[in-house]
Amino acid sequence: MSRNNERAKEVRALTKEKNIYYVNVMSSPGAGKTSLLTKLIPELSKEFSIGVIEADIDSDEDALTVERETGVRTIQMHTGGACHITCQMSMEALGALGTDGLDVVFLENIGNLVCPAEFDTGADMNLVLLSVPEGDDKPLKYPLMFEVATAVAVTKLDVAPIFDFDRERAVANVRKRNCAADVFFLCAKTGEGVRALAEYLRNKIKNTNNFIYSGRFSYG
Amino acid sequence: MSRNNERAKEVRALTKEKNIYYVNVMSSPGAGKTSLLTKLIPELSKEFSIGVIEADIDSDEDALTVERETGVRTIQMHTGGACHITCQMSMEALGALGTDGLDVVFLENIGNLVCPAEFDTGADMNLVLLSVPEGDDKPLKYPLMFEVATAVAVTKLDVAPIFDFDRERAVANVRKRNCAADVFFLCAKTGEGVRALAEYLRNKIKNTNNFIYSGRFSYG
Repeated sequence: MSRNNERAKEVRALTKEKNIYYVNVMSSPGAGKTSLLTKLIPELSKEFSIGVIEADIDSDEDALTVERETGVRTIQMHTGGACHITCQMSMEALGALGTDGLDVVFLENIGNLVCPAEFDTGADMNLVLLSVPEGDDKPLKYPLMFEVATAVAVTKLDVAPIFDFDRERAVANVRKRNCAADVFFLCAKTGEGVRALAEYLRNKIKNTNNFIYSGRFSYG
Repeated sequence: MSRNNERAKEVRALTKEKNIYYVNVMSSPGAGKTSLLTKLIPELSKEFSIGVIEADIDSDEDALTVERETGVRTIQMHTGGACHITCQMSMEALGALGTDGLDVVFLENIGNLVCPAEFDTGADMNLVLLSVPEGDDKPLKYPLMFEVATAVAVTKLDVAPIFDFDRERAVANVRKRNCAADVFFLCAKTGEGVRALAEYLRNKIKNTNNFIYSGRFSYG
C-alpha cells in the first residue's frame, strides 16, 4: 500500500508534466460508467483531446463501445482477476495509451464499490457513480468509496420513479461520509444532467495548474 | 488462501454435524440480496428453521430489515472494511448466530462481484444474483463469480422492459462461465419467480446428506 502511494506520486508527476487531467471513474458493476463516458466525452472532446483506459477483469466490450461511440483513443486493460487498479497498472496503462497530446484521461476502474477505493491510482479526481437501482443507502454500506469521492454522480435517474430512491436521502447519506463531494443527478440514456457534469469537469480541467501554467486557455 | 480452504472444511464439518444447509448469497451492491431474502424466507420458514447472517462493511440496515420482515433470527456482521467474508469470519458468525436447532443459514455476503468469489465460506451452495439494471454482460466481466455459482438468480425482472436486458443473452453469458449453474428469473418486488427458487432450495435442503441421514423428511 505504501509502495502504491509512492507510485501515485510518479503518476501525478507524469500527468503534470504532460498537462493531463486524470479522472478515475469508480462504481458498482453495471452502474453505468461506460454509458456515462459515451455521453460525457462528446461534451468535452471538441475542446479537449481525450483518452480512455478501460479496466476489466475480462472482456473487451467496454473499450470497443467507448471507441465506437466517441471516436477517442481507448485501450482495454485486463487485470487478470484483480479487483482494483494499482498505481503500477495505472502507470503502465498510461504508457500503453500514450500520453502525448492528451488533455484528459478517463480511467474506468473495475466495477467494485470496495477495493478500488483503497488504491490511489494517481488520478486528479475520483468520480464515483451510484446508480438509482442500487438504492440510496449504498454510502452507508460502502463508506470508503464515498469518502474518497471528489464527485458523486447518481446515474439512471430516469428509473427513479419505479425504484424506492430518494434524492434527498441519497445526498444525506453521501454527506455522512463526505462533506465536500459534489453530487450530480443524471441519466446517460436521456442525457439529463450530463451537461452539468461536463461543465463541472471542464472547470476542473481548466483550473488545474497544468492548464493555468500552460496558458492554453484564457480566463475571465 | 490455503488456510481459508482448511477452515472451509471445519465449517462444513460443523454444518454437517448440526444438520444445517448453508447458503452463501453473493452479488453486486444493490442487486437485491436483502429484498430476495425477505421474500424467499417466508416461503421456507414454515418447513425449516432459518437463521441469517448479514455481512456489511458498515450499517445495520439489512439485519434490521430481514428480522423485521421475516421474523427469523438474524445477526449483523461488520467486516471492518474487508471486501469479502473469510471462513474465519464465517465460522465466527455461525457461532454468534447459534447453530442449534437451525436447518438453514443464509449468509448475505458483501456486495461485490469480485473478491467474495475468491473465498470459500464453507457454504453448501453459492447463490449469485445478477440484477437486470446491471446488464446481461456481467458474467463476461466478472468470470470467477459466475464460475463458482451453484445457482444464478436474475433479479428485478419487472424492469427488464426498460433496460436493455436480454434473458437469452444473459443465460448464454452465464453458460460461457458455467455450464452447470441453474438460472432463475425473478422479481422480489412482485414475487414473480420467487416460489420456483424456493422450491429449488427446498429440494437442495432436503437432499443434503444431513437430511437423508437424519431421516427428518420422508421421500417419495
